[in-house]
Amino acid sequence: MTEFELINRYFNRPAPSAVLGVGDDCALLAPSPGMQVAVSTDMLLEGRHFLPGTDARRLGHKSLAVNLSDLAAMGAAARWAFLAIALPAADEQWMAAFAEGLYALAGEHGVDLAGGDTTRGPLCIAITVLGEVPPGKALRRAGAGVGDDVWVSGMPGEAALGLAHLRGEVKLDAAAAAHCVARLEAPQPRLELGVRLRGLASGAIDISDGLLGDLGHVLKASGVGAQLQLALMPRSDALRAAPEALVERFQLAGGDDYELLFTAAPAHRAEIAALATGLGLPLTRIGAIVPGPPRARVLRADGREVDPGRGGFDHFASA
Amino acid sequence: MTEFELINRYFNRPAPSAVLGVGDDCALLAPSPGMQVAVSTDMLLEGRHFLPGTDARRLGHKSLAVNLSDLAAMGAAARWAFLAIALPAADEQWMAAFAEGLYALAGEHGVDLAGGDTTRGPLCIAITVLGEVPPGKALRRAGAGVGDDVWVSGMPGEAALGLAHLRGEVKLDAAAAAHCVARLEAPQPRLELGVRLRGLASGAIDISDGLLGDLGHVLKASGVGAQLQLALMPRSDALRAAPEALVERFQLAGGDDYELLFTAAPAHRAEIAALATGLGLPLTRIGAIVPGPPRARVLRADGREVDPGRGGFDHFASA
Repeated sequence: MTEFELINRYFNRPAPSAVLGVGDDCALLAPSPGMQVAVSTDMLLEGRHFLPGTDARRLGHKSLAVNLSDLAAMGAAARWAFLAIALPAADEQWMAAFAEGLYALAGEHGVDLAGGDTTRGPLCIAITVLGEVPPGKALRRAGAGVGDDVWVSGMPGEAALGLAHLRGEVKLDAAAAAHCVARLEAPQPRLELGVRLRGLASGAIDISDGLLGDLGHVLKASGVGAQLQLALMPRSDALRAAPEALVERFQLAGGDDYELLFTAAPAHRAEIAALATGLGLPLTRIGAIVPGPPRARVLRADGREVDPGRGGFDHFASA
Repeated sequence: MTEFELINRYFNRPAPSAVLGVGDDCALLAPSPGMQVAVSTDMLLEGRHFLPGTDARRLGHKSLAVNLSDLAAMGAAARWAFLAIALPAADEQWMAAFAEGLYALAGEHGVDLAGGDTTRGPLCIAITVLGEVPPGKALRRAGAGVGDDVWVSGMPGEAALGLAHLRGEVKLDAAAAAHCVARLEAPQPRLELGVRLRGLASGAIDISDGLLGDLGHVLKASGVGAQLQLALMPRSDALRAAPEALVERFQLAGGDDYELLFTAAPAHRAEIAALATGLGLPLTRIGAIVPGPPRARVLRADGREVDPGRGGFDHFASA
């Protein structure tokens, strides 16, 4: 058995929900009758999307999580994943840990890894996920209407705070550090929330590049503006303990949260509150959709506007 | 518009066969009722899967072609593609040419690019393709039966000959060089052949890593052996003009041909010959499936056996 075959073995577990899984020229899938198939693909590179030396198990988790998060933002139920990976060396221990993290998350969400490709090269992970959603029920970016509430799940900013801690830019206590680094390295795709938001949310996106940047995509697609209240942004203990200026920036422009940002008519407030309780996941109303250009204004408690600077994260930025 | 958005623009053409194409968290597809979905993903790296400096237009073509070839080997009709690409620089001219090559091939086969991801990094291209095939009609590796003929499409070995020419290991005349380099850099996925082989072929695979290596996968999956006649291997003018020892090696173990290798009962010989005529594509019977261990013996005209050495191409080989 060559090194190559050895590595491939780690991704050759049975895929019971596939007609045919790993081991032929293609996988064969039988989508549920009448369902549409949602597909997303994301590529992760060492040094750009994750720090060199990131724990392999967590990286396996995160690589799949960021893709599943796109399905969540679409309101799709996750079904299948495909992994293409380049590895600088055939490091069996690393690969076993990576596979463990990936399969554990897949198992939690009923996702089968049904195929892939392994090669030698600079560490690069490209995953494609497939999910299912009934026709007309997908959560689109283009659906936010004037007067809708703007909601966010979880505690945006924690992942960026975890990254700042790892980089030594901020010093968190042990509990907060562990919590925020886990949010960075092992985000939880909000798949159940996405499915439950069908028929409730008018627009949705996941927060991968920062809240304002991603909200901007919704506003642009919907042709509306937004007004957010900084005081309404949810704060965990970890966020409350961090320096104020950093927290604002991380909440509004920190990446890697993989929470859902969505809009919904005020008539749905009670249902959404009940959903938060049912899922044990904070869902916070942070503002409203307003007429105007596709831009989000963020107001402080005293009515002054926050200057968010550049909100998103540009992979081609010269940073 | 940032560099990143600029690059993304090249892959944002309409995808009319998708319910929703590029521009949301996921693409939305509506598979044809009752069809199964075939999925394959392949990652291509500079220096490993293609030579540095490969013409961008041809690379766009080839990146999609090698994936479509997997659908062809499955007998699936190609429908959609997803591209994840890392680029060392935001080179607009390169990207325009790459996109042109990719979209041209997609257009030829009715494939819509319905989504993707672009980032900065060492040149790396991961494409996932989706096709459709009726239940029970997919061409599997595990189906070859004792007594079946072994067939191959096209002229295996030409791509390896083109590579040898580019590397200066062999000197071809201008016409042969152009032909063989085109076979290497712009292979034609045999999609129509794959679809037409439904119900005819008992086993199939595409030749990406060399004929014997890929045949070995069919034999292993089917639990049979094979006996091939070297004299039956098809030879184009380019192959006939090259040194004999090289040609044998390239025919049996050269990679990158993306021809189909398939098995079929002798009862189908006339139909397959008619198919070759109809498609204008040589289909050559090169041997037969025999009982025994999953190994292919290749016999010379005088009955001596060719020692193929290591037939396949191992991405983790220490070469």
